[in-house]
Parts: sequence; structure tokens; C-alpha cells
Amino acid sequence: MKIACGIEYDGTDYHGFQRQPEHHGSTVQGTLEGAIERIGGAFAVVDGAGRTDTGVHASGQVIHFRADGHLTPEIWQSALNAVLPNTIAVRWAREVPERFHARFSALSRAYRYTIWNDLAPTALRARYSYHYRRELDADLMHEACHFLLGNKDFGAFGHSPKGTNSAKPELVHCVRTMLEARCVRDEAQKELIYCDFIANAFLTGQVRRMVGTLLLVGQERLSLEEFAEIVQRVEKAHPGSAAPPHGLCLVQVRYPEIFGVMNNGEDI
Amino acid sequence: MKIACGIEYDGTDYHGFQRQPEHHGSTVQGTLEGAIERIGGAFAVVDGAGRTDTGVHASGQVIHFRADGHLTPEIWQSALNAVLPNTIAVRWAREVPERFHARFSALSRAYRYTIWNDLAPTALRARYSYHYRRELDADLMHEACHFLLGNKDFGAFGHSPKGTNSAKPELVHCVRTMLEARCVRDEAQKELIYCDFIANAFLTGQVRRMVGTLLLVGQERLSLEEFAEIVQRVEKAHPGSAAPPHGLCLVQVRYPEIFGVMNNGEDI
Repeated sequence: MKIACGIEYDGTDYHGFQRQPEHHGSTVQGTLEGAIERIGGAFAVVDGAGRTDTGVHASGQVIHFRADGHLTPEIWQSALNAVLPNTIAVRWAREVPERFHARFSALSRAYRYTIWNDLAPTALRARYSYHYRRELDADLMHEACHFLLGNKDFGAFGHSPKGTNSAKPELVHCVRTMLEARCVRDEAQKELIYCDFIANAFLTGQVRRMVGTLLLVGQERLSLEEFAEIVQRVEKAHPGSAAPPHGLCLVQVRYPEIFGVMNNGEDI
Repeated sequence: MKIACGIEYDGTDYHGFQRQPEHHGSTVQGTLEGAIERIGGAFAVVDGAGRTDTGVHASGQVIHFRADGHLTPEIWQSALNAVLPNTIAVRWAREVPERFHARFSALSRAYRYTIWNDLAPTALRARYSYHYRRELDADLMHEACHFLLGNKDFGAFGHSPKGTNSAKPELVHCVRTMLEARCVRDEAQKELIYCDFIANAFLTGQVRRMVGTLLLVGQERLSLEEFAEIVQRVEKAHPGSAAPPHGLCLVQVRYPEIFGVMNNGEDI
């Protein structure tokens, strides 16, 4: 039996989603696998829709794992929530067809990057937003987002060849389809700016590099034309630094309706 | 010169707002006083509008302190934010008349208690909401709130005589004026219930005890009539346990307009 779960996590204290030999206990995947093994009594492998980086959060991550069928999905959910630390929550669990795969079946992922744009910091939102002191024109950032839409080579916001383990980074396929991209200032709490992106898939670090570059547009240090020109390039070109991970959250993953997987997370 | 500041804090790791001899460094007041002394180079005393308990948060606490006038309020704000841990933020700072007192000048305090009402826990809101699994009827809780309005003796939700340092608890004046009291379920995120209270002042632990009792109403374990009867009593009578502190947040303090103090925090 194959079980899919909607997972919410506070990534602050994790070395990202993906299991790593040296950080087994402190990755989200490793922690989930440990909890599943403790409940099911057998070796477990978890696959996730998005491989979030160190410090990145999720409200709508989706995972799947195999189980022997003696526990219902509802019992798996309760048992996992009883065993997991309170930084990881199982929001829903259900049985899925054998051909379902959390990563490969996903149609799209939605990420939200939250900026706290004010001279003064925030304490209650500090874990989940990037404090950016300089004034930002969210409308300009939103305009720039239009250049990100569609089927494109996002190499400009991709891996820097240095520090990756790919020997031939120029061969990495960087074409992705951006379905939505927008920046909006929160109406009630004016300090907050949300940068929302939905794509079939993202390159590692892509959202944080796009946001880093949009921050320059928001200060008029980069014109819309310059931004458009950067997007056109197929090799690393983003002039801003990548925005830090704690502002980023994987909010939703969508699947074909046939799988009956809930679209958890918040609609953005 | 007297300076007032709007303070936001994550109370998770503090022994409440009020300085305590044994917890000097780990109270919000003690931490603020330490930061002011470090910047101003002189002994500092901070007064706060609300003496929040251990683990209680604030988005709209107001404090005041005296300074010798060689730094403007804007510089105080920046310097304090540079020195304070990221669990405490100074949202604004301004000079106030000598007769202003953060506590005694306050007209009202607003507290929000946040309940995460779902079988499954939340990870991203776990620090700031109380996970309550049993289904709650927020409309019933809201109806019960009407009985809390007005000028009343709130002794039913006051201190238990045991464990207080008042030798004669029966003499403690428990009359407060409740200006607003409501429970609403969030429209976008149905798991969230907000219990909002505005009063001239609150007894220690009053909001958490009121919420603990309202939780019984929300499950129909206590009728509206029984709730009304409890409110009428003047000695400790709340049948529920006090709701835990991490769901509670001091969101706003109001002052007479003449002081020109910003009403910081979110409007509720």
C-alpha cells in the first residue's frame, strides 16, 4: 500500500528536506523516515515533491511512502503526529494508487517568499520572513515578474557551477514553465511583501535567486529592461545575491485529479 | 526625556515580561533594560503596559524609559534593534510628555488568544497557537462572550488564592471593564479560531482562564446559562483549566490621543 501525506514543517533547525548521510537525524526526510520506521517497524523510504534547502519551510509539502497495510492512513497520520517533533506536522494522509509518486506525478509547485520590508524588524514573523530595510516598490517587482512567465531556460537563476557536484553544469537542463509569478504587498500589514511563484518545477535555489534580483528592481537599482535581459540569459547572471532561506516556504503541490490527492497548503 | 516604544516579542523563551531577581536576563523587561543600559551607559528602568506571563507573546506591548536626551528616539530605536536578540523588536519609538506612563496612562489593552482547532497539528503556527483537537463551535463561544462585556467583577477568572503572594486575596479588587469580547473562526484558514478581548485592564491569567472556560462552551460541555452564571461569581469559579500561554498575544494598548503614542500592533 502506498500512502501520501501533506507535510508542514518549520525548516529553521533542519538541514533541508533531503536526507544526507552526515545529517540523517536533522533533515525533514530523515526525521520522517525515522518516525515511519518507529511506527511501522520496517525500513522506510520517503519521497517528497520538493527538495527544500536548509532553513526553507513548507506548509504544503507532499510525500509518499510504502506501508504493509495493517494501519489505515488516518492511524498513520495520528501516530506520526504523536511521534514527530512539533516542527513537523502531518496535515493529511491518504492511500494513493501504486503509480503515484510525490515528486514525479506533481504537475506544479507553489513557493511563497515573504519579505518584511520596514526599517524596524519583526519578532513574531522573524522566523518566516526576510527583514529588508530599504524601501521596496512592490508594484515594480510585480511588473518584473511578467518577464518570468512561460516556458523558459532559467539558467540565469540556476546553480553556480562552483559548489555543485555536476561536472558539466552547462549540460544541466534548465527549462521550466513558470505558470504564475507575482509580488504583492499585504493590504492589512503593509510591511509584508509576498513573492509568489508557481511552476512545473524549479531549479535548486531558483526562487531565492529570482527574489534576490527582484529586490534590486524594487529599489530601482535594476530597470525592468535589465531584468528582462537577465531572464533571457541561459547561464548564471542574477546580479543580486540569493535571498536567505528562512523567507521561503513551499506552500502547495498540485497533482492530476485522478490521484485524489488533496491540494493542501494555502492557496496563494 | 521620556521615550515610549512599541515592542513586539516572541515570549517562547522568556520568563514573562516582568523582571524577576532570579530570571533577570531571561525576562523581556530585563533584556530591554540591559540593552538600554548598554546603549545609554546608565542604569535604566523600563515600565510596560502589560505584564505578560511566561511564554505569552506581544505584537503591541508599549514601554517607557528615561534617557538623558543625547540620542533621538529614532536612534534609540535603531540602536536597540541592533543590540536586542531577534526575539524582541522595537517597532517604533517617540518622545512622550513627562506625565506619560506606559502602564498607568493606558486606556485599554487588547489580547488575542489563537486556537488551532484541528485533529492534525500545525508546524508553522505551533509557537503562536494552542492546538485543540476536539471540534469547537466558535459561534457558541462568541455568544458566550457577550456575558463578559461591561463593568464586572472578574474574580471568577482571577488568581487562585493558592500560589499568589497576596495574603488576603479576598481584598484584591477584581472589577474590570470589558469593552470587546469575541470569538471568530478565520475565513481563509478554517482551523484558526481567534478569541479577542479588549478591557481597561485584566487580572493576572484572566484571558487564559476565560479561554479555558470558553473551550467548554465550544464543546457544549457548558451551556451559555452556566457560563453566564460563572461570570457572575466573584470568586475563583472557572471550571476549565487555564489555556496554555503560547496561544496568547498582547496585540494593542491604547492611550489618550493627547500623548501622541502610536497605537501599534494589529487592529483586531
